[in-house]
Amino acid sequence: MQKVELKWIDGLRFVVNDENKHSLVLDIKAEIGGTETGFQPVDLILVSLGGCMALDMVSILQKKRVNLKDMVVTIEGERANEHPKRYTNITLKIKTNKEVLQADVQRALELSRDKYCSVLSTLQIPPEIKFELITE
Amino acid sequence: MQKVELKWIDGLRFVVNDENKHSLVLDIKAEIGGTETGFQPVDLILVSLGGCMALDMVSILQKKRVNLKDMVVTIEGERANEHPKRYTNITLKIKTNKEVLQADVQRALELSRDKYCSVLSTLQIPPEIKFELITE
Repeated sequence: MQKVELKWIDGLRFVVNDENKHSLVLDIKAEIGGTETGFQPVDLILVSLGGCMALDMVSILQKKRVNLKDMVVTIEGERANEHPKRYTNITLKIKTNKEVLQADVQRALELSRDKYCSVLSTLQIPPEIKFELITE
Repeated sequence: MQKVELKWIDGLRFVVNDENKHSLVLDIKAEIGGTETGFQPVDLILVSLGGCMALDMVSILQKKRVNLKDMVVTIEGERANEHPKRYTNITLKIKTNKEVLQADVQRALELSRDKYCSVLSTLQIPPEIKFELITE
């Protein structure tokens, strides 16, 4: 079981805590009513997906003892024009230093994509989502 | 178009940047090889969903001029036992101060759920996901 908690600060800002006492602030862009003091929720689904696959890949490449020195993963998401403006297309670009064989990176990517990445799998097979309202 | 970038630091740690210069560190639990210095990617999909709906709801309740003083949203996710350990069930618990009518919170929840929340919609209709490998 994974668990996170969001607490409203003010305006459209929330502070997030995970179970290991990490914190971050959520906010949104000024043009849609926020104050831009933190990550937008809609960006964090890209971070979650990219992070899941990037960590899988580093872990796999390290076990293979390849000469990994740099990895930069860029995640771009295109959204529908109409509400709810869901992501229709997501592209991950994975850049590594030239000493790493692309065949090794490709294999690590495939292992994450086809076997290990929980976030990718969640995006492929919709989870059941429930809501509960509670009064203080 | 939304865009984020993840840069490998060391071990299983990445630093994330969005387009507005917000940063956060990704890491994983010690028991699975990390050093616990930052949010786990798998938790951030819960943050993204909870944050998207929480911000929608606050925005809707503020426009309605209800007496909102506190909101805490807890998001719990159950995962499959086998790799890729996708989320099978996600539960959002939304707690507000007692002065707020539950009918108003329910209506705000329904508007986010059925009309506005990009992240929920992305979890309901799988996006197309592509990969590109790049050598430095």
